[in-house]
Amino acid sequence: MENDRYARGWEKLKEIDGEVGEKVVESLKDIAPDFARYLIEFPFGDIYSRPGLDLKSREIAVVAALTAMGNAAPQLKVHIHGALNTGSSEREVIEVIMQMAVYAGFPAALNGLLAAREVFEERGGQAG
Amino acid sequence: MENDRYARGWEKLKEIDGEVGEKVVESLKDIAPDFARYLIEFPFGDIYSRPGLDLKSREIAVVAALTAMGNAAPQLKVHIHGALNTGSSEREVIEVIMQMAVYAGFPAALNGLLAAREVFEERGGQAG
Amino acid sequence: MENDRYARGWEKLKEIDGEVGEKVVESLKDIAPDFARYLIEFPFGDIYSRPGLDLKSREIAVVAALTAMGNAAPQLKVHIHGALNTGSSEREVIEVIMQMAVYAGFPAALNGLLAAREVFEERGGQAG
Amino acid sequence: MENDRYARGWEKLKEIDGEVGEKVVESLKDIAPDFARYLIEFPFGDIYSRPGLDLKSREIAVVAALTAMGNAAPQLKVHIHGALNTGSSEREVIEVIMQMAVYAGFPAALNGLLAAREVFEERGGQAG
Amino acid sequence: MENDRYARGWEKLKEIDGEVGEKVVESLKDIAPDFARYLIEFPFGDIYSRPGLDLKSREIAVVAALTAMGNAAPQLKVHIHGALNTGSSEREVIEVIMQMAVYAGFPAALNGLLAAREVFEERGGQAG
Amino acid sequence: MENDRYARGWEKLKEIDGEVGEKVVESLKDIAPDFARYLIEFPFGDIYSRPGLDLKSREIAVVAALTAMGNAAPQLKVHIHGALNTGSSEREVIEVIMQMAVYAGFPAALNGLLAAREVFEERGGQAG
Repeated sequence: MENDRYARGWEKLKEIDGEVGEKVVESLKDIAPDFARYLIEFPFGDIYSRPGLDLKSREIAVVAALTAMGNAAPQLKVHIHGALNTGSSEREVIEVIMQMAVYAGFPAALNGLLAAREVFEERGGQAG
Repeated sequence: MENDRYARGWEKLKEIDGEVGEKVVESLKDIAPDFARYLIEFPFGDIYSRPGLDLKSREIAVVAALTAMGNAAPQLKVHIHGALNTGSSEREVIEVIMQMAVYAGFPAALNGLLAAREVFEERGGQAG
Repeated sequence: MENDRYARGWEKLKEIDGEVGEKVVESLKDIAPDFARYLIEFPFGDIYSRPGLDLKSREIAVVAALTAMGNAAPQLKVHIHGALNTGSSEREVIEVIMQMAVYAGFPAALNGLLAAREVFEERGGQAG
Repeated sequence: MENDRYARGWEKLKEIDGEVGEKVVESLKDIAPDFARYLIEFPFGDIYSRPGLDLKSREIAVVAALTAMGNAAPQLKVHIHGALNTGSSEREVIEVIMQMAVYAGFPAALNGLLAAREVFEERGGQAG
Repeated sequence: MENDRYARGWEKLKEIDGEVGEKVVESLKDIAPDFARYLIEFPFGDIYSRPGLDLKSREIAVVAALTAMGNAAPQLKVHIHGALNTGSSEREVIEVIMQMAVYAGFPAALNGLLAAREVFEERGGQAG
Repeated sequence: MENDRYARGWEKLKEIDGEVGEKVVESLKDIAPDFARYLIEFPFGDIYSRPGLDLKSREIAVVAALTAMGNAAPQLKVHIHGALNTGSSEREVIEVIMQMAVYAGFPAALNGLLAAREVFEERGGQAG
């Protein structure tokens, strides 16, 4: 059953975060391989695999939370990719981040927007 | 045009947060009436009135952010009402909050779930 | 194997947090039973069951973190119980919390100390 | 010289926070008497006793920071007293707190305003 | 009236933050032009334009808050410029940041001091 | 007696943080020499010099707190050195950081692990 969680999580991670997600896992292999496994099993194998909320909404939730917390820039970028990979448009991502000015202040939103620009550029995308 | 922002914001606040939102504004009238006005004009008149992201997604974003920040319990409760008022089911609200365990830790998610239960009970609802 | 994680986690939770931990799980049963299960499986079945760091040190780490974050008072109290249950003296708990004044400020440490006093009183203990 | 820090700090604490500050120190006497001493010596004996910034500005800084952090409500109230005791008007305190909406979000400012109302009422004051 | 808020905000932004503030607005033009407008209208056109608290005190409040929050380094630097532009001496800025060790811990204050040094160097100034 | 605190603190800082700690103090000498002194006197001369909790446990507590707060990367690295200098193995440091996923989320733990890898590499060490 554990193997199920890992296999299911790995598929989910690839579906949501794509290559950038795989790189995160790869980066952990030498320093904390068990943490790489937990990251696949719990967030992706357990949580993201749950029915009851669509993946697009889940990624909107993460982009909002990480923008608001403001202390995890690399993970925010991974999940801006994730939001775009699960059906949000660049415009929708921008709207979520802008909205965080209300709940976490203008600096948090501003730093989130700059992260979004970097991601959009990496993907060769266009804002708006 | 200012009056437009206020009127538009007031309608939006009633649509999203309902009576609990009106009470928040009311509670500010004696101590900081201008802040009550800003609260209507900027978050509701400017941000929530924007096209580009549906209200249901906006409220999911706020519930996620306030659960993750973990330091604004009364506002989290207002926006759990807001999420339910804009089309999320209780199940979807629970899913968003549970997911925050991944990004902000189990205590943040746990406190969010207890806030959700209080809101569901206030509304006479059923979890699940 | 899943069942193993749950069973192992449940034993660990009882060992560390005792009755207060069981109450937390119980409180989640109606609103989010799957979250109660995850709470047992991942933190307790996976993390706390790992060799490589003794439980006393693990609970010192949690008391430090929750004191510093300052936004999860109920969980801080649960883990002050946990620290005392895994071999820390009241004096050691006080020392950890006081030390957080250096890293998270005096208000965080002060609120942690007041939480500790409540826990010590619940247990009929003596500070010092 | 240590005795100097303590004596100087104690005078400063009484000047800034008044009775509410003395109560904080008193509340620590049984659980962590050394922490009560450090609280007097370092923040008040060292920091607040420094020339180079007037006490009114120092208390404005603290009210701003604790409002923005949003996780230390009792200490925010103590320092709203402190701000009023060191020359700020209620109006100025309200302005500082409102301004935090820009940097830490509307919920943080809103909770700060409600704390201010409680303090103003304790003092028999009038907002505005 | 909207135009008034924008024009008033723009003047205020230039007065407080100077060129570094204009650059922030410029950096947003392609990714989120409406956010650039809100940034001028609400923080600067509404909040900073209010009577009731002098600009020097307002910038002290922001430097304190951003130092304490510790997750918005670029904006802290902008507002250290702002504090110096509105009448604070370098010494006063240093005092505000040092004081935050008491409320948000030594690391937050330390990182704030290093930000201040960068700003002072950019301006060709002298600490003290 | 003040001189005692400074001398005692300086020895303690060298014992715990080694050269990286001395560099931090050095870096403050021009911008805020008094802060360098306070940093030696209060955290190291007062807190770390207290009996009642061994240094190994104190450093575990700091690594946990700074990982969880997630907004003080340079200081986290200093204290990972500190943990290794006071008797923790690399494995134990990794365990503490991984555990923070439970209390502050996976991004905080992930960023902590990457900081640990940098420190281990600086020391020529091996994870595990």
